[in-house]
Amino acid sequence: MASDTNSWFEDSIQTLTYNRNQRVWSIIVSLFGDLARAPGDRISGSQLSRITEPMAIKPEAVRVALHRLRNDGWIASEKSGRSSFYHLTQSGLVQSEAASPRIYTRDVIYPDVWHLCIPEPLRKSERDEQARIMRREGYVSVAQGVYLGPEVAPKRDDCLTISGDLGVLPRWLKQQISPPQSVKAYEDLEQALDRFAQILENAPTPTPLEVATLRTIIVHVWRRALFSHPDLPDAFFPEGWRGTACRHKVMDALDRLGLPGLDSLSA
Amino acid sequence: MASDTNSWFEDSIQTLTYNRNQRVWSIIVSLFGDLARAPGDRISGSQLSRITEPMAIKPEAVRVALHRLRNDGWIASEKSGRSSFYHLTQSGLVQSEAASPRIYTRDVIYPDVWHLCIPEPLRKSERDEQARIMRREGYVSVAQGVYLGPEVAPKRDDCLTISGDLGVLPRWLKQQISPPQSVKAYEDLEQALDRFAQILENAPTPTPLEVATLRTIIVHVWRRALFSHPDLPDAFFPEGWRGTACRHKVMDALDRLGLPGLDSLSA
Repeated sequence: MASDTNSWFEDSIQTLTYNRNQRVWSIIVSLFGDLARAPGDRISGSQLSRITEPMAIKPEAVRVALHRLRNDGWIASEKSGRSSFYHLTQSGLVQSEAASPRIYTRDVIYPDVWHLCIPEPLRKSERDEQARIMRREGYVSVAQGVYLGPEVAPKRDDCLTISGDLGVLPRWLKQQISPPQSVKAYEDLEQALDRFAQILENAPTPTPLEVATLRTIIVHVWRRALFSHPDLPDAFFPEGWRGTACRHKVMDALDRLGLPGLDSLSA
Repeated sequence: MASDTNSWFEDSIQTLTYNRNQRVWSIIVSLFGDLARAPGDRISGSQLSRITEPMAIKPEAVRVALHRLRNDGWIASEKSGRSSFYHLTQSGLVQSEAASPRIYTRDVIYPDVWHLCIPEPLRKSERDEQARIMRREGYVSVAQGVYLGPEVAPKRDDCLTISGDLGVLPRWLKQQISPPQSVKAYEDLEQALDRFAQILENAPTPTPLEVATLRTIIVHVWRRALFSHPDLPDAFFPEGWRGTACRHKVMDALDRLGLPGLDSLSA
């Protein structure tokens, strides 16, 4: 029966990794953000290998990814005996904490009031830099030189701002915010989540390590879809957009799996 | 003493026509809009000549201007005996009526709520036409593809709109709405109005014809300043902008002069 017992897990992995383009460093980011986001959390090199192995990720690829993330100041490592332990740096903790409401909130509540912020019109050569700065400040670019932000505009005397109610959102804006490939990405994700829910229905209770692997993949594919577009209410997306449906299905899957303790992940 | 009595009038004309660039058709528009804006009002060719003569406008220039305005469908004429009588057409009446609140209101009240309207971003080649249409709908262009309108946005599904409060207006916008030459135009106008008020102080009571000439010039120079920028509250203009001061001084001058009846203008 061992092969049967395992097939649900392999099927699940197959189903959830439908999205072939896996970047290992990005998977590691998902993994830490999901399993080891609290200060003091640490994961050993061998735990990382055990979690990522079922996704067919080679140990060398994990090592390269860890190296990159350490260089980026996102994780730090320390040796203890013959093992290496990894944890989020202060900056990694802050970034994971900042991203997690968007990733993990089941019912996102958006403001009723929004504002547009229009900085001084610039020459073409300076526009990209301005857009970069505005996006870093949390604005969504809705047209050239026009930025949308939540709530009432902060006091600033360099921009024309207006705070208030948005009207009906025009089709061109919806298509710009969510192009067809983004709509398709959610359709694919929803299909995978539905299939995974079916598999899980008839599966034995997963081991903590299996849970860690499955959660990592789910969070990873969810993050990929989510961060391909700005964080905006449903009204900004085209009809047939499955983002909110996927959100609920992701949360259902994670609730179903539960969160494994880090100490349960040592074989 | 006849030369002394006349000198206040000549001085006034000199003072108020500081702005050399007089377009006769535009002066005639000011004249009708001020003196003969009501349905049924008509002015004879000889009245027109008598009103414009002191401004050193030649009768041929008046005839050319009348011809142009008739071709534009703005005025119509009819013969009565050897005289021609002119009146605003239906379209001329409507346009004059539409412009007059902006020209004649002493204390303009602006809305608290404004909206921005952002149509679909277009190619360069189509932008001018879009801007033209938006301006015709009463919008002020504040940045490329960004239009400001009063009150809550009308329901329209082709634009991103937001209705609400404007923040502090940025300097770049004020300078765009009122460039230095526009600021200077009001300074010049105010100076002329102040000087004219002084002259009037010591002048004999003007005749109805003198009043008609002076009103025409005042309304003309006022319209020229006024229509060089969009109709917006003081907050949109740079510090030191004398638009509102000029508005009060124009209204004072017109009140002081009074409105002559058309029948009092026949010599």
